Amino acid sequence: MRPHVFVNLAMSADGKLSTKERRQVRISGDADFRRVDLIKSQCDAIMVGIGTVLADDPSLTVKDALLKKKRADGGRDENPVRIVIDSGARTPVSADILHKGPGTRIIAVSGSANPEKTAVLSEYAEIAVFGDERVDLSNFLEYLGTLGIQSLMVEGGGTLIWSLFAEGLVDELFTCIGNVVIGGRDAPTPADGEGYINEADFPSLVLKDAERIDEGILLHWIVKKTDDDQ
Amino acid sequence: MRPHVFVNLAMSADGKLSTKERRQVRISGDADFRRVDLIKSQCDAIMVGIGTVLADDPSLTVKDALLKKKRADGGRDENPVRIVIDSGARTPVSADILHKGPGTRIIAVSGSANPEKTAVLSEYAEIAVFGDERVDLSNFLEYLGTLGIQSLMVEGGGTLIWSLFAEGLVDELFTCIGNVVIGGRDAPTPADGEGYINEADFPSLVLKDAERIDEGILLHWIVKKTDDDQ
Ligand SMILES: NC(=O)c1ccc[n+]([C@@H]2O[C@H](COP(=O)([O-])OP(=O)(O)OC[C@H]3O[C@@H](n4cnc5c(N)ncnc54)[C@H](OP(=O)(O)O)[C@@H]3O)[C@@H](O)[C@H]2O)c1
Ligand SMILES: NC(=O)c1ccc[n+]([C@@H]2O[C@H](COP(=O)([O-])OP(=O)(O)OC[C@H]3O[C@@H](n4cnc5c(N)ncnc54)[C@H](OP(=O)(O)O)[C@@H]3O)[C@@H](O)[C@H]2O)c1
Repeated sequence: MRPHVFVNLAMSADGKLSTKERRQVRISGDADFRRVDLIKSQCDAIMVGIGTVLADDPSLTVKDALLKKKRADGGRDENPVRIVIDSGARTPVSADILHKGPGTRIIAVSGSANPEKTAVLSEYAEIAVFGDERVDLSNFLEYLGTLGIQSLMVEGGGTLIWSLFAEGLVDELFTCIGNVVIGGRDAPTPADGEGYINEADFPSLVLKDAERIDEGILLHWIVKKTDDDQ
Repeated sequence: MRPHVFVNLAMSADGKLSTKERRQVRISGDADFRRVDLIKSQCDAIMVGIGTVLADDPSLTVKDALLKKKRADGGRDENPVRIVIDSGARTPVSADILHKGPGTRIIAVSGSANPEKTAVLSEYAEIAVFGDERVDLSNFLEYLGTLGIQSLMVEGGGTLIWSLFAEGLVDELFTCIGNVVIGGRDAPTPADGEGYINEADFPSLVLKDAERIDEGILLHWIVKKTDDDQ
């Protein structure tokens, strides 16, 4: 059984994850930073796409010392399992995610990844091969389930999130909407990729909660199950 | 003095105005429809870009009979002045906005518009020429002020809204966020165009109000004034 999947992201009031140059920008504030650190510390694994690794070089570690201690006291690693979705094994060997903080890393590649690159990366992370050209997310998530990963947080970016929605693999969506306008037809959004064409295909959500945070608002959506879902 | 400008739009939970095919889709529900009709009936003028006319062919009329009557009782036209921003005079002669309901229409074109096309359109609408290649929005809005238009509602789309933000011409932003995911890196968003690159340039907003509506939420943002603004 795949883990429970929740997406967490920060977007501008006009629905952008960053600028068209894909440079990380501050959209939310300190309260949201602490909230994200908390939910990160509570999940079993955290996942991003290679686009986010290349753009932001995040470490995805838990930042707060007390939260880290709480995990350790519970017999868990200080950080959740950190995962990169990276068909071509393009993760730089110097990426922060591979070096900062203790804990397991998994790089999910596809069958098309260069074996030399995966060999190098395998010194720092477990390599999981799923799919021929692109990572097969559905089967990879099933695999995570077999590892005992029950809750999976997805940080982005928009390309990965789109694929997860398109394959019916998202259970919850948290969007922290910041009080800025970024603009740009080429700026990343919460769900990029191909996009739906028919209204009947749009995933339908339930707004569970809306609460002000920093200068913006945090929306918590639950994805409605469809007949297609098991 | 230019009118007070407020943008009103409906977007999906992932920040899209419609699908990548730019086909009009239902994002909000009946309560939002009535809210939009009400604020439309209260403004002096309503404006869209030519992209929206070509994609959606909106009439931009007030729909509710009581709201129309209220306008008429106040000595005003049944509908606000309807405006299309259309550098090249591409508005189709058959566009609903030119035929449905009584009231004034203005098509803002640029100096580059084909005189034959503007001559034809001038049978249905007042033609205003501002800017050489593209409509000069700032000067056009000043002109609207001289016509006595004090409140201007902008319905979209994302390209026009981006330009208005970029030129510091937006005072308020209403985003009704619907309970669907649309996705698509090429789908229109609330602010398309070039987009900002530097964080220092992002317009900063104040979240005045957030209230649930239909299955989603309506956010009411006020644009903070900067030192650049008069
Ligand atoms: N504001 C926020 O909360 C937030 C959070 C995270 C990221 N971001 C921003 O998002 C941007 C990066 O997003 P992005 O969309 O460019 O990249 P992304 O979603 O992080 O990564 C996408 C990449 O993952 C790989 N991939 C492999 N299998 C896939 C599959 N089945 N489905 C989808 N992708 C798959 C693809 O590259 P390969 O085929 O080469 O593997 C794809 O290009 C950056 O600007 C970053 O700053 C913002
Ligand atoms: N969900 C909603 O609330 C909502 C509301 C409205 C529209 N929409 C959707 O938005 C999409 C259309 O948006 P769009 O971005 O393609 O078109 P748009 O913003 O309606 O129109 C943009 C066009 O206006 C003209 N223009 C002239 N001067 C301009 C200036 N100074 N700045 C910017 N534009 C100027 C340009 O064409 P020329 O140079 O040829 O004049 C430009 O391409 C459609 O898919 C529609 O369904 C959704």
